[in-house]
Amino acid sequence: MLGEYLNKVRKNVPLVHNITNYVTVNDVANVLLACGASPIMADEAEEVEDITSICGGLNINIGTLNKRSIQSMLLAGKKSNELHHVVLLDPVGAGASALRTNTALNLLKEIKFDVIRGNISEIKTLALGSGTTKGVDADIADVITEDNLDEAISFVKSFAKKTGAIIAITGAIDLVSDEERCFVIRNGRKEMSRITGTGCQLSGMMTAFLIANKNPLEAAVASVCMMGLAGEIAWNHMQEGDGNATYRNRIIDAIFNMDEETLNKGVKYDVR
Amino acid sequence: MLGEYLNKVRKNVPLVHNITNYVTVNDVANVLLACGASPIMADEAEEVEDITSICGGLNINIGTLNKRSIQSMLLAGKKSNELHHVVLLDPVGAGASALRTNTALNLLKEIKFDVIRGNISEIKTLALGSGTTKGVDADIADVITEDNLDEAISFVKSFAKKTGAIIAITGAIDLVSDEERCFVIRNGRKEMSRITGTGCQLSGMMTAFLIANKNPLEAAVASVCMMGLAGEIAWNHMQEGDGNATYRNRIIDAIFNMDEETLNKGVKYDVR
Amino acid sequence: MLGEYLNKVRKNVPLVHNITNYVTVNDVANVLLACGASPIMADEAEEVEDITSICGGLNINIGTLNKRSIQSMLLAGKKSNELHHVVLLDPVGAGASALRTNTALNLLKEIKFDVIRGNISEIKTLALGSGTTKGVDADIADVITEDNLDEAISFVKSFAKKTGAIIAITGAIDLVSDEERCFVIRNGRKEMSRITGTGCQLSGMMTAFLIANKNPLEAAVASVCMMGLAGEIAWNHMQEGDGNATYRNRIIDAIFNMDEETLNKGVKYDVR
Repeated sequence: MLGEYLNKVRKNVPLVHNITNYVTVNDVANVLLACGASPIMADEAEEVEDITSICGGLNINIGTLNKRSIQSMLLAGKKSNELHHVVLLDPVGAGASALRTNTALNLLKEIKFDVIRGNISEIKTLALGSGTTKGVDADIADVITEDNLDEAISFVKSFAKKTGAIIAITGAIDLVSDEERCFVIRNGRKEMSRITGTGCQLSGMMTAFLIANKNPLEAAVASVCMMGLAGEIAWNHMQEGDGNATYRNRIIDAIFNMDEETLNKGVKYDVR
Repeated sequence: MLGEYLNKVRKNVPLVHNITNYVTVNDVANVLLACGASPIMADEAEEVEDITSICGGLNINIGTLNKRSIQSMLLAGKKSNELHHVVLLDPVGAGASALRTNTALNLLKEIKFDVIRGNISEIKTLALGSGTTKGVDADIADVITEDNLDEAISFVKSFAKKTGAIIAITGAIDLVSDEERCFVIRNGRKEMSRITGTGCQLSGMMTAFLIANKNPLEAAVASVCMMGLAGEIAWNHMQEGDGNATYRNRIIDAIFNMDEETLNKGVKYDVR
Repeated sequence: MLGEYLNKVRKNVPLVHNITNYVTVNDVANVLLACGASPIMADEAEEVEDITSICGGLNINIGTLNKRSIQSMLLAGKKSNELHHVVLLDPVGAGASALRTNTALNLLKEIKFDVIRGNISEIKTLALGSGTTKGVDADIADVITEDNLDEAISFVKSFAKKTGAIIAITGAIDLVSDEERCFVIRNGRKEMSRITGTGCQLSGMMTAFLIANKNPLEAAVASVCMMGLAGEIAWNHMQEGDGNATYRNRIIDAIFNMDEETLNKGVKYDVR
């Protein structure tokens, strides 16, 4: 079933406007091309409204934010809202600095997001209005496990209700939820955390999936399953001497080669 | 014959100043090293004149432009003109926003370019003074085919005459032209469009070829053939499970390993 | 012995704040993950003090510096000094422009650095207060060889004494020195210079090694040996058709797979 969501991306070639960090931007562009979408990166205030207007959706990622790009995020987000485009927020490092926390909260206030995707610490920071993220990785105290899963599901549903957005929390166990249904996804491998930017890549790809498909919750789920499954397939291709640099390439390669059947067979989730 | 142009690059190790976008900048640096040149990236207004003075040429790429870098492009371009350095313009996304279109047109007015390299939609935007580029890829309506080739050749010659620059339009069929001779190049593979930045990489490499060689038109042609041939060689090395991330690496690898004989044997062009 | 320094990095997972250039930033992040550390990149003045406070150390790299990031370097550096964090300076391109030379000299004046790592031309520029670096690579006239080694060692010791920092000069022969002991390291391969950013990667990794270990001189030496040894191991994995793009990935892979025993067996240095 979810494989059809990939087919739609490949057929529609959605154009995604990315205001994203300079650390992982190249991988975001290549993963968008790999899944069948088309990326454009632009962060100058004077042009972001023009650029976002020709796109189908907007991916806002606050990693390496600065005063200039924050202004551009606001302008592009508001314009996208006006045009009823898909808009995604990736609050990288929310909780790690006052600027990141406040920027993410202000974006939430000023822009209507279709999806918010982050790790558990970032999402908790947004929900609580403050946080203690240790850098760009989730804090160990926050990690979702089988033991605290029920609590996490009820948290994510309630935050989805509060924001009106789909919430995607990614980690060892991924949760993708609106206020009613929470998909608990168990695709992926722990080694993916040894590569910079798999989260950023997913945010780009998720934006493309939402643009190309009508059911946003299931489109988001399809993209999360696909990223995780690509991580599994890529790991199976690893040979002696390979490490995280090769793994990075193999994950993007696996997305490039993913087809409907492979995705349908490989997804691992249940609905709560 | 064109292989000699590569030899000159490897022998002279031209230093190329790049004011380029942050999406593909790492690949531009590695492709310059692969072909035997040396890259330096600098985009702060206060230093670009110093930097460009120690280089042999300047590659201006307007992808992810901003107000600060636009100022630096103008300063570096004028200084390079004063010093009679090679200057190339890559008008990424011209036509996709008013800022990009106007910046590219203003650069053309203020700076004398040796080469302008872009896709057909970008170059048409410059020629017409306005455009409707869909993102950073060429619009389907514009694509050069065998059917509209004569028309495209006469367009490129006339734009070369108007600007006094060599015009390089890359796509399925590449055209490299001054006002008199147009090289029609059929190297390359369509899968190269599934990687971000092969155009940006070519612009960097083309700048290096023009610095190291006396005949700028043929130097530009050599670099276009080399990029396309590298795309062909790299594709032949692709194995099951490989995708666009591996292809990206293999193209740069193929440039690293390219020699005079391989290039001479592999070029596919005719002159019109 | 030096392998224990790597173990400490893998065990402590030091969080490294990087204010670095956008050319090689992705590789810096992946190499930090490969060696067991955790990277965070942030360069906005309004947040760098927050970010650096949650980290164990700060890596300042002036490649692609701009007025905004220079301000951030000063703020983050001073804050790190207050907190007694490890601070490293990578003066990329010092000598290539007045802005880079003056910025590096000003950083040296305002901030107490634990380590300064660069090529011989960059370090000479800092020592002399001016320079003639040709781009971002060392000038041939400056290169350290067996013939001028004694002179170079006495230069590096005297500059270490003057600055109170460990000085790491990397090239064909690497020197890592405080005012008393100079480690002369012969790991590495000349082909590493055909990849952009091995120096930037080393600076990131060196910061991590100093955070996680008590003996800063030996920690710096361990990271230099590890980078060079990874270059050797990676080269041994190269196959026909591979070039600098694959070599880049294989070096990071080799760091990912490095263990105590391999490092202990592979190091090549003597102390002077």
